[in-house]
Amino acid sequence: MSTILSVQGSPRGERSHSRRLQEAFLKAWQARGEGRQVLRREVGRVAIAPVTEGWIAAAFHPENEERSEVMKADLALSDRLVDELLASDRLVISAPMYNFGVPSGVKAWVDQVMRVRRTFGMDLSNPANPYTPLVLGRKALIITTRGDHGYGPGGANAHMNHADPYLRLVLGHMGITDVTVVAVEDDEFGGEGFQQSYQRAERALADLAETF
Amino acid sequence: MSTILSVQGSPRGERSHSRRLQEAFLKAWQARGEGRQVLRREVGRVAIAPVTEGWIAAAFHPENEERSEVMKADLALSDRLVDELLASDRLVISAPMYNFGVPSGVKAWVDQVMRVRRTFGMDLSNPANPYTPLVLGRKALIITTRGDHGYGPGGANAHMNHADPYLRLVLGHMGITDVTVVAVEDDEFGGEGFQQSYQRAERALADLAETF
Repeated sequence: MSTILSVQGSPRGERSHSRRLQEAFLKAWQARGEGRQVLRREVGRVAIAPVTEGWIAAAFHPENEERSEVMKADLALSDRLVDELLASDRLVISAPMYNFGVPSGVKAWVDQVMRVRRTFGMDLSNPANPYTPLVLGRKALIITTRGDHGYGPGGANAHMNHADPYLRLVLGHMGITDVTVVAVEDDEFGGEGFQQSYQRAERALADLAETF
Repeated sequence: MSTILSVQGSPRGERSHSRRLQEAFLKAWQARGEGRQVLRREVGRVAIAPVTEGWIAAAFHPENEERSEVMKADLALSDRLVDELLASDRLVISAPMYNFGVPSGVKAWVDQVMRVRRTFGMDLSNPANPYTPLVLGRKALIITTRGDHGYGPGGANAHMNHADPYLRLVLGHMGITDVTVVAVEDDEFGGEGFQQSYQRAERALADLAETF
């Protein structure tokens, strides 16, 4: 038994390359074994609410005091999104690079699932090492697309990539350190560069469906 | 005559340190000369819509073809936000670091103002250098707060900072390269480290109000 939480980050539907690759990966992965489940969370075509002042007060409410009903309401979406993350043992995020970062919906999802005492621990009395990851024993896959090229590790534009390296950082903060990134480049330019990049991503994902 | 576009990025109101510092700066700056105007754009306490599939199609619609009324509607918010940016000659953004990045509302604002042919040019026939900045002759100030410390240039956690360096990058892409960052650290820990950092930021902003 294994469950993937699949987070779809593209505002695009059928035309999204990252979404299409993600769906193909999920299908191939499910075909590899019995009882493999996929739980979908749409954050690209459905707006995810930003965290609010009430959210922050409720999330950081003292552990030994019960939350009011209002506080519980302020955290209801976050609780649901965290529950989904904890109920799965695999995570697949598709996220096109938008303006050198992740789309705002993906960031909203990140802000909702980075929850003190649920996905990471925080001990302010230990300022040298205050954080403890709480989401352990999981694998993640990030499928990303970039309009231009050179944004991968060692590439000429790698220093401008705040998309997949950012996701890797926040996943690591929660304890998800086994992260694979599959990227398609030259999405904006099309042509042979894009075609080759897309086909390489397809092959990498087909291979990964065997082992993920 | 000078106009600041002030973008408030914190979901918090009176309790927000970045918002309080921003308001004090705006007040001091306005007091330094006649006819200084402030145009406010709230993106922290009011949700900014994410870009959609329709938005993308409309923004990248061929320049020589008129947009349909639906396309114009899809871009209406973006047009308003870009108009505000272009109507001002100074930009002040307050943005607390949330989970190593900017809050999702600030990212949504970035995605709405990064507009081809309005804030940057794109020439796909020149793949070596396809982008041209279109928002020139402006200054920007970023006021940011961080829960922990060491996220500034040269700091031990600088490589994990996807907040103000990210904003500097996207502003530069549009042509805004004269960017000052004022940061408060240790927001989460409070105590003397935070107090000193806050007071340093207050002094830096008071000085900057003279010259901005």
